[in-house]
Amino acid sequence: MASSSSSISFIFLLLLFTISVAAAQIKPIYLPGTYQSSLLKKQEKTKIPFKTHYFPQILDHFTFLPKSSKVFYQKYLINDKYWHKGGPIFVYTGNEGNIDWFAANTGFMLDIAPKFHALLVFIEHRFYGDSMPFGNKSYKSAKTLGYLNSQQALADYAVLIRSLKQNLSSESSPVVVFGGSYGGMLAAWFRLKYPHIAIGAVASSAPILQFDKITPWSSFYDAVSQDFKEASLNCYKVIKGSWAELDALSAHEEGLTEVSKIFRTCKGLHSVYSAWDWLWEAFVYTAMVNYPTKANFMMPLPAYPVEEMCEIIDGLPKGAPKLSRAFAAASLYYNYTQTEKCFNLEGGTDAHGLHGWDWQACTEMVMPMTCSNESMFPPSSYSYKEFREDCKKKYGVEPRPHWITTEFGGYKIEQVLKRFGSNMIFSNGMQDPWSRGSVLKNISASIVALVTQKGAHHVDFRSETKNDPDWLIMQRKQEVVIIQKWLEDYYRDLKQN
Amino acid sequence: MASSSSSISFIFLLLLFTISVAAAQIKPIYLPGTYQSSLLKKQEKTKIPFKTHYFPQILDHFTFLPKSSKVFYQKYLINDKYWHKGGPIFVYTGNEGNIDWFAANTGFMLDIAPKFHALLVFIEHRFYGDSMPFGNKSYKSAKTLGYLNSQQALADYAVLIRSLKQNLSSESSPVVVFGGSYGGMLAAWFRLKYPHIAIGAVASSAPILQFDKITPWSSFYDAVSQDFKEASLNCYKVIKGSWAELDALSAHEEGLTEVSKIFRTCKGLHSVYSAWDWLWEAFVYTAMVNYPTKANFMMPLPAYPVEEMCEIIDGLPKGAPKLSRAFAAASLYYNYTQTEKCFNLEGGTDAHGLHGWDWQACTEMVMPMTCSNESMFPPSSYSYKEFREDCKKKYGVEPRPHWITTEFGGYKIEQVLKRFGSNMIFSNGMQDPWSRGSVLKNISASIVALVTQKGAHHVDFRSETKNDPDWLIMQRKQEVVIIQKWLEDYYRDLKQN
Repeated sequence: MASSSSSISFIFLLLLFTISVAAAQIKPIYLPGTYQSSLLKKQEKTKIPFKTHYFPQILDHFTFLPKSSKVFYQKYLINDKYWHKGGPIFVYTGNEGNIDWFAANTGFMLDIAPKFHALLVFIEHRFYGDSMPFGNKSYKSAKTLGYLNSQQALADYAVLIRSLKQNLSSESSPVVVFGGSYGGMLAAWFRLKYPHIAIGAVASSAPILQFDKITPWSSFYDAVSQDFKEASLNCYKVIKGSWAELDALSAHEEGLTEVSKIFRTCKGLHSVYSAWDWLWEAFVYTAMVNYPTKANFMMPLPAYPVEEMCEIIDGLPKGAPKLSRAFAAASLYYNYTQTEKCFNLEGGTDAHGLHGWDWQACTEMVMPMTCSNESMFPPSSYSYKEFREDCKKKYGVEPRPHWITTEFGGYKIEQVLKRFGSNMIFSNGMQDPWSRGSVLKNISASIVALVTQKGAHHVDFRSETKNDPDWLIMQRKQEVVIIQKWLEDYYRDLKQN
Repeated sequence: MASSSSSISFIFLLLLFTISVAAAQIKPIYLPGTYQSSLLKKQEKTKIPFKTHYFPQILDHFTFLPKSSKVFYQKYLINDKYWHKGGPIFVYTGNEGNIDWFAANTGFMLDIAPKFHALLVFIEHRFYGDSMPFGNKSYKSAKTLGYLNSQQALADYAVLIRSLKQNLSSESSPVVVFGGSYGGMLAAWFRLKYPHIAIGAVASSAPILQFDKITPWSSFYDAVSQDFKEASLNCYKVIKGSWAELDALSAHEEGLTEVSKIFRTCKGLHSVYSAWDWLWEAFVYTAMVNYPTKANFMMPLPAYPVEEMCEIIDGLPKGAPKLSRAFAAASLYYNYTQTEKCFNLEGGTDAHGLHGWDWQACTEMVMPMTCSNESMFPPSSYSYKEFREDCKKKYGVEPRPHWITTEFGGYKIEQVLKRFGSNMIFSNGMQDPWSRGSVLKNISASIVALVTQKGAHHVDFRSETKNDPDWLIMQRKQEVVIIQKWLEDYYRDLKQN
């Protein structure tokens, strides 16, 4: 098996598509396994304290072609339980998935709403969840998907928020935008592009610098590896060594049967790549959600699951094959609840219509990634040529790898924003591999970085629990204090004008 | 003749389309008369010290439809005579016309280039001049014109500037954007939306607040009237009274012949409206270009042409018909050189393909205007319904009257930009009727308003002359000092990072 690099979707497991160095080995997009799908279904049914609305949204904000004014219905959620009219509006700028799921996993906003008497609004991103401009034909081809991108999404939020404030007769209510991951990027960019609509942005785990050559391409997988290395050097070495064993089996005639046995698959595997991806996903996403408390974001997992995985590896006999030990660790991710008798590594369905990120990754969200020799994954380089060919084959359009940095900037961000902009929080946990592509240092008095060494992917946005560690309680408190200051400034300025 | 309100193009005379209160009286778009066309031709041939280039520009930055990546050739001009590599790049963000013409009329940039060792770049706006995405079919219908708008234009500038800096191997050169009128709006918006590309913006006579209900709708024509009133109360009264005389003639059987005679037309008029517009234009544009020195921007005119017009009116016998006196004053505008024996009020051709503004005015650039009872024009109201119907009839698309304020803001701009953004100059002269829709007060330490009582439409951007009054010399000096500070800050920050 050749070395691989992977383009990872922020949150969902789905889009791990491995581009092998040999073109012949290019794999189709990995779709979510039945485990994830069934879990997601359960999570989406979780009762959340929001009312659902639909907004007639314009298809294309940036042309005036006859087609542009086509309207689609954009879903958004509202909670006005704590709102005092004229009070602030906290808007979550939805990312690449069903908005209910983000609402269910952004308890922080619900936790702080009473203190601020805030209205809560969660807006679904176009082309995700129920907000499909062309119904079930939305993902059909570039002719429909062409309208799926971040600038259109930001304009959607601007139009919807303005209309909402008008309908509520609360036009002087200050708006603060919140977002995690890609949603955090959108929140940060929204504050930069629409300062007249949002007075501030809380961007949690938002890798706005993961583009072009701003952040070293190996940083993501180096960070994953560091999480495991910090938990246990042996654990890191076992995982690092397991790929070669899998590779060796793939060359073997009986390899597929052997791998199916090791991975306790429900059905015999069609490709060794499935096991490869299955492991890869487990390690990457566990690093992302290496939360300090038991949680169920991607999967039900214990507190600090990376440490748990490494305890499993370290607890097994040293002589045992590395691949078996890696499998045992990965099983924690897929089967912490111990309800699975066997694993379905292949044949997942896209039950939630979440293909969209792959389109975005192939057009604007071009984030080159490599695995260095120091990572626990096999070393791999990045070939833009292959990436481009793959995307052109899939969608028939040309990627624009420099567009995001042209439209939103990123290079020398400290210098650019030192004297421009204000009221932004970039929160990050260094356990999260995406943190390396985010803003990790204060830029100015009001564009600040809140960094925790032990935090993971937008952990600050999760509901508070009684087991939260002090550093997390402190981080959230800092966020509240800063938001409070933005609002005080706003109301003071309002009186003066 | 019913009362009228007019939507005025910033610079060119062409798009004065009168929307009469009675729908039946809606006039077609007024196209430039042969006088203007021949003058413009002469001006365009003026030798300007720039080299012409063409940049392969993407048609649609904000969708990834198969059509979006179509390329067109965008014209831009370069002068590198004064540039020291690594030094600043001064970019003019072109507005609604041939870029050569703006380059010829923005001598200020050429005047200050040696001091700053600056590279000068003038970029033509898409769908104007030679930058036609669909060649001579560019204005054919909404299917092609749909790509003509300010957001696409700003993205063009971003892409072109980034590419240019790369090609010059001068990526750390600071860029300052300049623009006058609509070009000034673009410069201001460019600094707000692309702070990572431009470190500052000089926006001269940029009415970014002339939208929605931000600026009183009557302010434009009130300002024109004030210019004339300040020159002479009698002059103002004569012009104010002339419309009724024209109106009376239009009701008369022999009226058309009589009007043709009064207006010394080369051919008999087909419509009294032509005389109406001819007068209207002369007064409005003379107010705009009420420069303190002899100049040839719209037309060759003497210093302070409003005063000259009023001297003509005041010099004629009090008993003479007001219409004749108004005609005599307007003749200064059309025939200061005294070379015209008769006037062509009808049948102008669109020799320069400048229709574009009318499309923009019908889609995004919706600037409602009325004439108050105090103005020297007949009182008129604004009917969005009629405007919309007219635009739909012409182009088949729906105007988006709130889009500019959603995309770029404008409401409570002092509050929004007090704590956001930096390095912007809004320069205005109060003689210019567009000044009322611009920023006339300092917003923060680095977002400043430079206002002169006697200045007209972007007079500060004209080449210096030996007759420039002190206030104009001072205004330009202030601009230079401020730009100097932006650059010093930039280079200091660059060293520190």
